[in-house]
Amino acid sequence: MSTVDISKLRTAAAHLLALAVTSLYKDAKLGTFGITDHGFYYDIEFDEPISSDELPAIQAKMLEIVLENVKFSQENRSYDSVVKEFTSKEQPYKRELLDEVGSRKVEITMIGGNDGFIDLAAGPVVESTSQLEHLWLLDVSGAYWKGDDKRSMLTRISGACFASEKELEAFREYRAELLRRDHRVMGKKLGFYSVDPEVGTGLIFWSPRGRFVRDALAGIIKQRVLRLGAELVETPVLANAEKTILITQPQSEQVIAKSTHEDTERWYAVRQQVVGAHVRMFSWKERSYRDLPWKVGEIAKVVRYEKSGELEGLHRSREITQDTTTIVCTLEQLEKELELLITTIVAFVRDLGFTDFELVYRLPVATTKQQKQILAEIETNVKSISKKLAISITFEAAEHRVIAEPELVMRVTDSLKQKREWSKIQLLMSLPIEQQIEYMGSDGEVHNPVVIRATIAGSLERVIATMIEHYAGVLPLWLTYEHARVIPVTSKQELYAEKVARQLLERGIRATIDSDAEPLEGKIKQAEEEKVPYMLIVGEKEQTTNGISVRVQGHGDIGLLDIETFIRDIQGEISSKSIKSALI
Amino acid sequence: MSTVDISKLRTAAAHLLALAVTSLYKDAKLGTFGITDHGFYYDIEFDEPISSDELPAIQAKMLEIVLENVKFSQENRSYDSVVKEFTSKEQPYKRELLDEVGSRKVEITMIGGNDGFIDLAAGPVVESTSQLEHLWLLDVSGAYWKGDDKRSMLTRISGACFASEKELEAFREYRAELLRRDHRVMGKKLGFYSVDPEVGTGLIFWSPRGRFVRDALAGIIKQRVLRLGAELVETPVLANAEKTILITQPQSEQVIAKSTHEDTERWYAVRQQVVGAHVRMFSWKERSYRDLPWKVGEIAKVVRYEKSGELEGLHRSREITQDTTTIVCTLEQLEKELELLITTIVAFVRDLGFTDFELVYRLPVATTKQQKQILAEIETNVKSISKKLAISITFEAAEHRVIAEPELVMRVTDSLKQKREWSKIQLLMSLPIEQQIEYMGSDGEVHNPVVIRATIAGSLERVIATMIEHYAGVLPLWLTYEHARVIPVTSKQELYAEKVARQLLERGIRATIDSDAEPLEGKIKQAEEEKVPYMLIVGEKEQTTNGISVRVQGHGDIGLLDIETFIRDIQGEISSKSIKSALI
Repeated sequence: MSTVDISKLRTAAAHLLALAVTSLYKDAKLGTFGITDHGFYYDIEFDEPISSDELPAIQAKMLEIVLENVKFSQENRSYDSVVKEFTSKEQPYKRELLDEVGSRKVEITMIGGNDGFIDLAAGPVVESTSQLEHLWLLDVSGAYWKGDDKRSMLTRISGACFASEKELEAFREYRAELLRRDHRVMGKKLGFYSVDPEVGTGLIFWSPRGRFVRDALAGIIKQRVLRLGAELVETPVLANAEKTILITQPQSEQVIAKSTHEDTERWYAVRQQVVGAHVRMFSWKERSYRDLPWKVGEIAKVVRYEKSGELEGLHRSREITQDTTTIVCTLEQLEKELELLITTIVAFVRDLGFTDFELVYRLPVATTKQQKQILAEIETNVKSISKKLAISITFEAAEHRVIAEPELVMRVTDSLKQKREWSKIQLLMSLPIEQQIEYMGSDGEVHNPVVIRATIAGSLERVIATMIEHYAGVLPLWLTYEHARVIPVTSKQELYAEKVARQLLERGIRATIDSDAEPLEGKIKQAEEEKVPYMLIVGEKEQTTNGISVRVQGHGDIGLLDIETFIRDIQGEISSKSIKSALI
Repeated sequence: MSTVDISKLRTAAAHLLALAVTSLYKDAKLGTFGITDHGFYYDIEFDEPISSDELPAIQAKMLEIVLENVKFSQENRSYDSVVKEFTSKEQPYKRELLDEVGSRKVEITMIGGNDGFIDLAAGPVVESTSQLEHLWLLDVSGAYWKGDDKRSMLTRISGACFASEKELEAFREYRAELLRRDHRVMGKKLGFYSVDPEVGTGLIFWSPRGRFVRDALAGIIKQRVLRLGAELVETPVLANAEKTILITQPQSEQVIAKSTHEDTERWYAVRQQVVGAHVRMFSWKERSYRDLPWKVGEIAKVVRYEKSGELEGLHRSREITQDTTTIVCTLEQLEKELELLITTIVAFVRDLGFTDFELVYRLPVATTKQQKQILAEIETNVKSISKKLAISITFEAAEHRVIAEPELVMRVTDSLKQKREWSKIQLLMSLPIEQQIEYMGSDGEVHNPVVIRATIAGSLERVIATMIEHYAGVLPLWLTYEHARVIPVTSKQELYAEKVARQLLERGIRATIDSDAEPLEGKIKQAEEEKVPYMLIVGEKEQTTNGISVRVQGHGDIGLLDIETFIRDIQGEISSKSIKSALI
């Protein structure tokens, strides 16, 4: 097989999709298309929006044209002739695109010669449809025309396209693995959490096992917050909705609470962040430079507005558990504090076993002289810290995404190559001025301090979702509720199984016993599915030798072990918060 | 001094108060009066409600009449003459009372003979005002006429009255102690919490020290919940406001939240309890008798409506931290579960050092046959448990207070004789039927289970407030953030002080150093005020002998101790969760 320019292939596949769709749905209106890192997509308006159920028929049509070995060609046509053709074919979106071009010549791609299908070109394509055989339609979703939520909602059909069946097959396996590891599927198997639509979508019920993971993570985060030099506080869930300091999201995105009582007829906001409450605590007293840096930390549940369509299990829910460290310091102290914070979040990510991550620095457009000064200072600091700690920090300019405050974000890539944003360090530049947050400097003058809002986990929910997907459900042992399951081979070993479990429990290893009457194979299968880290099979032989046959999750039987050896190794694995089994 | 019937004395004092008030405020309208366990009160309508600033003048007037030695007398007068007198004196409330009596003869009390002051009698009084010299006006508050919030609000003036100056003096000391120990004063000194009116009244900000106490208490409660056999879960803060199962307070007393977004335009309630969410969890699966008893526990922040005037620091706030154990069981399992719960709450109260407490069983009026059956069963159970555990349980009938569900309440009396309600065990009788909470019995039939909602602490905020007042701010060591403060006598001992503090910290004793340049006396005074349990004075002598001079909070100097001895004793005091110092 000759080497193919993969982007040519995927561009051609998008044109082919348009041809197939318009031949199956006469009234389909074509919008724009694009290529992705595994294929292509096309936004199309249907009389009735189609569902993914209709993809097999469209894909069959595409593959039919592939077999026909139809030629692609590209040429420049006169503007008028193209306008005429799209007008006669009732393609208003293509017409709109042409209106915007307004050129004398238009580049087009044809499939099947002059009488065939034409589309506005987006680059060179392959010679013939026969080169497109390794394609696969994936799913449909909604996409606004030109990304404008005031225009029509089109249907985006996306597909994969590769140069070889081998590559497509690998991609199929990757997709299957993504689905298998999806925390919404795996989380259910693990019994971590549930959502009850009667109570509210996007609101998480933590089951005992999931709650355990969350608490264990909260525990190590608390330790890190304390090591930053912060003291732990706890602030109210509700707050006066009129005080903007307590709210960050705009009013339209608040969840607000109203107390309906005669003497408290006022609006409260359910907290969306806690930094505002922390800053209030700072402002209760007159502060001097001797009080700085002033640091408090809190792990709190906050609510967030997320559209129904954007909810994604634990990755994006309407209540999140977030640690916040608020640091009030002088501009001179900023570099040291930033370095401490960056060191902390890098260590946190590494401790959880993630080695593929990047720090992104996003900066806003400075409007005042003071802001420019602070931004310049931060930039210098970030560069110097990056060098000192040998951590690469990517600078993203404001054009990329409009933000109000400069922020450093930890972007973690999991073992499935999915990128997730965890930690965030924000510099609240306007808050000290707007809220008159001040301290008396050593010069006897009043100054505005710098206020940093940092979160190590960002969202404990998201960290757990990422870990489930990264580890395919087999979390590090110290985060696991059930360390080991003792499985007696027959009912004759039940007493021995109890003795083993008791020994483990006494030494801090959470063990259960599966004494169901089922056959051994079934019990092992269930334990494998429930991602139990260690399965301890006890039969006659094990009982006689006072041992256990150990199966390690995902690795199978590793043979007969002495109980004491097992306990010592496992205790070490737990106490060291290891991310690897001590036995393999 | 002759023995006096104290209730006669206090009734007479109430009449005297009415006489003094009407002579000072010509338009004052007298309502009703009563006696208390330390004095009396009178509800009076003033043209303009008076404040406590006016009490000294009223009290002076009363004492003036005391000195005049005016005679009291009692007689029966004709109804008409009394009506006539109160009408001419423009006393509409007295007239209203007379209207209700409608008798031919009216018993009255006179001060100063036939031309003097008359009042409707409430029992026998003393002979002369001279017996009333040991009186003290305490405060004013609001009280609705006849306790009806649709009638006028009168001013209640309360006072103390005793038979001897010694008793009055003792009462004055008790009141002073109440004020000194008031957790709103003491809590501030201890740096436990704050309220920020800008954020909202009744909303608690926990400072690091208070947060520590709350977390430590939450820790022992969690252990007790687990020992009840419950698993810990965590449910959402928000919930669909239309689902009554998630709410207990009536709509008018809810704090409701509205999500203002296009796709989520619905009302949410901020949780006021979690038992509703727990019951939802139970209902997610089909349950059989083999799943019972089903138990889950959670420590959660819930919001409560409390009128501004009813707020009382941590005793009554608008956000409380409450542990909840929800038990779903059969009627047959009820006794065992109740016994477990009662044992647990009694142990909790005793562990915190409270020995004066009572269990109150309040029962509602049963309306259905099934309810009657359950109530009879509960009554039998409660009596049998009371006998078995040798714990007296007071039965309070429904007349006392109308409640919807039977409940057992733990009423704790602190060292100042203040009674506080902590733990509560409620049987939710109507919920299983209304919400169709069911299980499959061993008989193959579907049954409604019993649902118990239990809270060990009731409110962690209230428990902490009670403890601050009970212990005058000196909490048991295991609940104290700062165990010891090392105080160097001069700057020469600073290095040694650091060495001592390091030794303590390494052994788990949280020690700080006060190296301020202040004189020793001042530093000791501050540590005493801040209720630091152990003050370790280190001067030249201590440094030479490698020892510490220990001052125990509230007990003064107990002499020179070897550091190792101190550490061992203190470690024992902490780990045993002792309520007494190990050193005295």
